[in-house]
Amino acid sequence: MLRLDLNNLFSERIGQYGIDWTAEFATHRQRLDDARDALWGRKSDPAEFLGWIEVPEDTETVRHVLRYRQASAWVEDLVVLGIGGSALGAQATNAALGRGPVRLHFVDNVEPEPILELLQTLDPRKTLVNVISKSGSTSETMAAFLVFRQWLELGTSDWKKHTVVTTDPTKGILRPYVQAEGLTAFEVPPSVGGRFSVTCPVGTLPLAFVEVDLESLMAGARKSNEQARGALETNLPAQTALVNHLFSHRGINIAVFMPYSSRLRFLPDWFVQLHDESLGKRLDRQGQEVRTGTTAVRAIGTTDQHAQVQLFREGPHDKLTVFVRLLNPSKNLEIPAVKGLPGLEYLFGRSFFELLDAEARATAHALTKAGQPNYTLTLEKLDAYNLGWLLQHLMWQTAFLGELWNINAFDQPGVELGKEYTYALMGRKGYEKLAEELRAEGVM
Amino acid sequence: MLRLDLNNLFSERIGQYGIDWTAEFATHRQRLDDARDALWGRKSDPAEFLGWIEVPEDTETVRHVLRYRQASAWVEDLVVLGIGGSALGAQATNAALGRGPVRLHFVDNVEPEPILELLQTLDPRKTLVNVISKSGSTSETMAAFLVFRQWLELGTSDWKKHTVVTTDPTKGILRPYVQAEGLTAFEVPPSVGGRFSVTCPVGTLPLAFVEVDLESLMAGARKSNEQARGALETNLPAQTALVNHLFSHRGINIAVFMPYSSRLRFLPDWFVQLHDESLGKRLDRQGQEVRTGTTAVRAIGTTDQHAQVQLFREGPHDKLTVFVRLLNPSKNLEIPAVKGLPGLEYLFGRSFFELLDAEARATAHALTKAGQPNYTLTLEKLDAYNLGWLLQHLMWQTAFLGELWNINAFDQPGVELGKEYTYALMGRKGYEKLAEELRAEGVM
Repeated sequence: MLRLDLNNLFSERIGQYGIDWTAEFATHRQRLDDARDALWGRKSDPAEFLGWIEVPEDTETVRHVLRYRQASAWVEDLVVLGIGGSALGAQATNAALGRGPVRLHFVDNVEPEPILELLQTLDPRKTLVNVISKSGSTSETMAAFLVFRQWLELGTSDWKKHTVVTTDPTKGILRPYVQAEGLTAFEVPPSVGGRFSVTCPVGTLPLAFVEVDLESLMAGARKSNEQARGALETNLPAQTALVNHLFSHRGINIAVFMPYSSRLRFLPDWFVQLHDESLGKRLDRQGQEVRTGTTAVRAIGTTDQHAQVQLFREGPHDKLTVFVRLLNPSKNLEIPAVKGLPGLEYLFGRSFFELLDAEARATAHALTKAGQPNYTLTLEKLDAYNLGWLLQHLMWQTAFLGELWNINAFDQPGVELGKEYTYALMGRKGYEKLAEELRAEGVM
Repeated sequence: MLRLDLNNLFSERIGQYGIDWTAEFATHRQRLDDARDALWGRKSDPAEFLGWIEVPEDTETVRHVLRYRQASAWVEDLVVLGIGGSALGAQATNAALGRGPVRLHFVDNVEPEPILELLQTLDPRKTLVNVISKSGSTSETMAAFLVFRQWLELGTSDWKKHTVVTTDPTKGILRPYVQAEGLTAFEVPPSVGGRFSVTCPVGTLPLAFVEVDLESLMAGARKSNEQARGALETNLPAQTALVNHLFSHRGINIAVFMPYSSRLRFLPDWFVQLHDESLGKRLDRQGQEVRTGTTAVRAIGTTDQHAQVQLFREGPHDKLTVFVRLLNPSKNLEIPAVKGLPGLEYLFGRSFFELLDAEARATAHALTKAGQPNYTLTLEKLDAYNLGWLLQHLMWQTAFLGELWNINAFDQPGVELGKEYTYALMGRKGYEKLAEELRAEGVM
């Protein structure tokens, strides 16, 4: 069960922002209803990239993934070759819920030393390589694939058995290669973008190997769909989108995302991509320059109380902080008493979870007292059902914000130019003119 | 060798900020000279917390640490119990340079499940526990210590041999305990704060166990001291502080810190604490409300090109981005050619490092073209000497910024209230009144 606690926003200390909540909810009701209807109305058009709404209903693909996992009992190490949206969802969910015995490795960069180190620790005969790229044109992923393919070819009797591809069903560089070589492959639905792909095989295939309960993950995501289809009163994503919208119009350009859980340590990284890449846009849907976007900032409680909270509390009023709290632990641990350490009696006999939870509430209250706006999402506990719900909630929130800001939340035009400069610097054919420009500007 | 490349800031596209660099350097010369003289002049006063300036000169302590490490050949796992500044420096340096065989674990949170999981994988007879807290009053660290102490007591014949304490030489809860129990202990110099402690035993003791070349780390840090003592023309930290200062006065409230290296993946976390906790202050040195502070944002290249760069390029002009680039790899890896993958020829036969470096330069140039200010710090290569230099550089930059903003960069008053709320929620004696307040406000 995902719950939203906005109480701290209603504190008189947050009054400086001059937000009359009742009035704002009434004023924005129509816009949010329109946004909801627009999103649900467009969802079947592949060009709108709203496929992530329906993926959690697709139980057949989940079963297909699970059958493949069951047939791969020989796997001891799974290496995911993917970057950005092709890695972050599985990374976040694995850290939260993954349970061996298969070890999951993510190659999401092209620095040579860590790749060499990983290759040296792996036994190719017990390693499965999952290359994930929708288009097959991502330099980093393809460079890694070329190296791992060769390594498997040299170290196993059948590199194809050790390779599984996740890519577009028809387009791109990888699909023809899959067909020519007869590789096993899973599909990224054409209407699902990387940062919205955690519930499709981009996320589910690796997660099947670390025993994540995929059916529950999907069921949780469907709960968020249910809310996102309903009236504003029970529509959590529309509500959190509205809160983000209201503060972004009051000089708040930083969105801190702070789960109180080490197991959720990669969740902010996943959220940062979802939020930043979806909402950081130069042009609106009519082509007007708008330069939208708040910057999501990663924090983990309690750890970052000793790193970032000083700034969050005493620094400028430029942040909206979102806490994620778990209401129950899955296992708890008691703090034992010991003689000779005066001043620590308040800890003796208490549990770690009590301490974690007290710190979460204390920090939220301390921010509120300092006039720093914050709200809390609570999960009943950390399991696949609740995490699936939260992931889908955050995708919906992002989609609603895109509607409120009249931008396309599903493209990433700003990434292109950097890619083209890279091609030019690497001497790729067809980029000679750009290379000239870079030479003239002293970049190469 | 650490180098600073400001070229992108001089591009005409950054001209919108109206910064005349020659004029600004001339105008601020006196202030920066004064700041430098003030910092060097105050460095011997323990109340000023400038002990980090002289720590790299203290080769005796390094030898002491190394002797202890040599005498502890039985250790297979080292568990660091520390949070914030007691963990981040060793974490960042270990990820960059650590080389087994000892496995390093950081317990920097109080979530019960990960602690239980760690305890289950460790053999107490081969585990050394390093508890790090200057005051001994940090709830998280002390709760973990109580559990690990009991676990060692139950699982070894002599828990004291398996425990090493890093704390204040005279003050706090832990020092009397060390004396009463006869534990091995290292000192946090009283004049060194947590976030400036990586070169003292807080950082060096764990790092000695993963074979980091401590003497070179110190030598690198001394090179930065040399620059920080000199004239503005060669004073790199004064220069980067000035750049940060100038943009912070032009609406830029976000400081992106983006090394192009997975091995430097925890360096931004260390920097985030250093920067945010030092510079996010409500009051200036005269007690006037100022609410200073830019928010440091973590990013890793190339990985975050596929997560955050869309926003960095197309989003609002609210960021100053700092890239960290390595000029040379320590090992390289060639990208092999393969048939049947058209369009990837530009990668065949090239090296991973070439690709990594091309992407770094391409991204910096793409940001510049979008009018997004950025500069680059380059390290000749990633080794202890260069990393030590960079760490000390960033500490100096922070200290210079504190002077320019007329704030105390070495305290953290904003963390206190949250701690007190935690005590109240945990029912600690002496916090009954605060507990009443929390009850009245519905927090407990």
